[in-house]
Amino acid sequence: MTETAVSTRPVTARTLTDKLVAARAASITLATATADLKNSALRAIAAAVAAGAERIIPANERDLENGRSNGLSVALQDRLRLDEDRLAALASAVVEIAAIPDPVGESVRGRTLPNGLRISEVRVPFGVVGAIYEARPNVTVDIASLALKSGNAAVLRGGSAAENTNRVLVELIQEAIASVGLPADSVQTIDEFGREGARELMQARGLVDVLIPRGSASLISTVVLESKVPVIETGAGVVHVFLDESADEEWAIAITHNAKVQRPSVCNALETILVHRASAARLLPAVLGRLRASGVTVHGDRATLDLFADAELATEEDWSTEYMSLDVSVRIVDDLDSAIEHIRQYSTHHTESIVTNDVISAERFLAEVDSAVVMVNASTRFTDGGEFGFGAEVGISTQKLHARGPMGLSELTSTKWIVRGSGHVRG
Amino acid sequence: MTETAVSTRPVTARTLTDKLVAARAASITLATATADLKNSALRAIAAAVAAGAERIIPANERDLENGRSNGLSVALQDRLRLDEDRLAALASAVVEIAAIPDPVGESVRGRTLPNGLRISEVRVPFGVVGAIYEARPNVTVDIASLALKSGNAAVLRGGSAAENTNRVLVELIQEAIASVGLPADSVQTIDEFGREGARELMQARGLVDVLIPRGSASLISTVVLESKVPVIETGAGVVHVFLDESADEEWAIAITHNAKVQRPSVCNALETILVHRASAARLLPAVLGRLRASGVTVHGDRATLDLFADAELATEEDWSTEYMSLDVSVRIVDDLDSAIEHIRQYSTHHTESIVTNDVISAERFLAEVDSAVVMVNASTRFTDGGEFGFGAEVGISTQKLHARGPMGLSELTSTKWIVRGSGHVRG
Repeated sequence: MTETAVSTRPVTARTLTDKLVAARAASITLATATADLKNSALRAIAAAVAAGAERIIPANERDLENGRSNGLSVALQDRLRLDEDRLAALASAVVEIAAIPDPVGESVRGRTLPNGLRISEVRVPFGVVGAIYEARPNVTVDIASLALKSGNAAVLRGGSAAENTNRVLVELIQEAIASVGLPADSVQTIDEFGREGARELMQARGLVDVLIPRGSASLISTVVLESKVPVIETGAGVVHVFLDESADEEWAIAITHNAKVQRPSVCNALETILVHRASAARLLPAVLGRLRASGVTVHGDRATLDLFADAELATEEDWSTEYMSLDVSVRIVDDLDSAIEHIRQYSTHHTESIVTNDVISAERFLAEVDSAVVMVNASTRFTDGGEFGFGAEVGISTQKLHARGPMGLSELTSTKWIVRGSGHVRG
Repeated sequence: MTETAVSTRPVTARTLTDKLVAARAASITLATATADLKNSALRAIAAAVAAGAERIIPANERDLENGRSNGLSVALQDRLRLDEDRLAALASAVVEIAAIPDPVGESVRGRTLPNGLRISEVRVPFGVVGAIYEARPNVTVDIASLALKSGNAAVLRGGSAAENTNRVLVELIQEAIASVGLPADSVQTIDEFGREGARELMQARGLVDVLIPRGSASLISTVVLESKVPVIETGAGVVHVFLDESADEEWAIAITHNAKVQRPSVCNALETILVHRASAARLLPAVLGRLRASGVTVHGDRATLDLFADAELATEEDWSTEYMSLDVSVRIVDDLDSAIEHIRQYSTHHTESIVTNDVISAERFLAEVDSAVVMVNASTRFTDGGEFGFGAEVGISTQKLHARGPMGLSELTSTKWIVRGSGHVRG
């Protein structure tokens, strides 16, 4: 490993603007770095993380200790914790990112114009990607690696709860990047500037090209509303499955159960089952019985309670709650139109699925439901970059601009137009 | 023409929120309207504009009269003016939009996953598109037609200077849309709410999906910085041509002349000529002589003045000024690196071109200059949706998110993922 700026220049002596300017400078080098070189850096990062327990775990323990004294919840403490197994898993995720094709330089479209001018639109890095997240040191390694692979510099604000862990992780990452001859400033933390640093990052239009918030709904909403830098919103999911009049009973049971129970704490898990009135008596007892048997609490409307006694009465709040737990809300609706209307009112436009054997219902649902992912006869759990074959999971966008639905590496790029002429002038 | 809500419900009785809610409702119908139906509406709009002089021109004269009393510049008065010829041109532009293929429903990518699930990403309308612009009634017809074609409702804030003209134009457009059975609320003006209306529009996250500012740099920058609704920025161009050491003299003369003189008031016109020191004496006298002969004022650095006496000394401000006039700035640089460095510092990242015979210089310029459009041996005037073959000109984006460079109709759409299964659950 060569000696670089990392070791000779103390990080804390730099202002936030210094760091952003340095990230911008690094991004210029990264933009034209070859895939081979970027992949070497990624493999060096993986090796450093896998072998870095001695430096990482003591720092992580300091964060955990602070968390305990500050009353951090047990769930957040668990997210914060890194051990040998988790470091190995993190490292192997980075090796996988190295194996994905480089999106930079991909030609998106192109043609020769009638006048002979050759034009093509090619993928280029954004430049500097900012990330704001909370108490998840794995995101530090994850975002840094995805940014690097896509030719972007990364500026990370990981929150005070993980500050010690993140500082060590970023040091290891910088040393690894420098060891292959790329700029150490390609990845930086701004945790030392606290909340004020996050605010400054959101104002840094021109120095930061895009900002990705990761974490609670309130963190994401703050960034979306306050940032002057363009944001890619990876949002919460209030996810619906509609059981149509013709829904196959086995599929209805399997899809609702898988969507709710397989991993209830994630954004593509099911929140609300809507059931066509004409099939409610046929389907609900079995569907809800199966969920109940797996420990799911059912919050039903009055009509549901008539068919399934082992349920609580749903409140208005239930229809717009992302549970992240073994809870499900159930509403009996008059028809497909009422189902679509309910979804329009309460959905966060993440993922919705219809279970039906009726081709007209299927096509109407696909056309009229305005969500990032709309499904027929499939579990909502499939809304996932890995499942879609993207190789890497950058997040699931619920906005309409730039990227919608599961985001792969190409969603971390912009494009530019290349035009080649021979003295062409416009007539 | 059928009687519709347009004639029975006075527009002024509605609040701004009423109008946005109505636009949202209309957008649901538009999203699944066939291309045939949308094209019929466009042809009805074209006919109404072409035949509408009796209603449009008196309203336009009132705006012009107000403009004169309020001291509106002659240039802005000219932009504001509509006459029979301009109405005919506007109408024929709408007919051309009707002829472009519908972007909605286009499959962007898709595949069958290893588990048999079929996924495809298809283009869908954004929903409601807002536009904020100034004193250009042609933009009213233009944006309304582009939005309609791409299945979006449009909410227009066209500024007080054109308020009477825009009101009549929107009435005609609404009548035309309603005449084919689409919702009149698909296109609405909010001019009657004044500046406060523009501010409310920028806050209407959830009701408006994307906002497009059109006009002066200060208007665009206000919208970009204040809007909570996502913005597509169509920005100003500080445009560069670099004459490399090996530049062909004929090409250097033709390209700089075309880029500067053919239409100096547009964003893809040339601002700054950078010249390699080794070719300055060979190229500048002829290049600048030709420009001077066409009435161009040359603002040169000291080294330029030594080679071309008929020039003014450039100030620091010249390097970052978008002239929109027959002015050009000229700087002699040491090499390609200095040229790229100058562009990095002063460009608005719209369009830059290199004139060179050296393949290494050409490839380096294309790779290292980070602008929406980067050219070799071609006039910067080619950065244009029409020239690129897009059929319609939505604007030229200088941002990196969502769209970059000339925008066609597909840039007025989002996408959604369609997933088709047969009872698929995740293992």
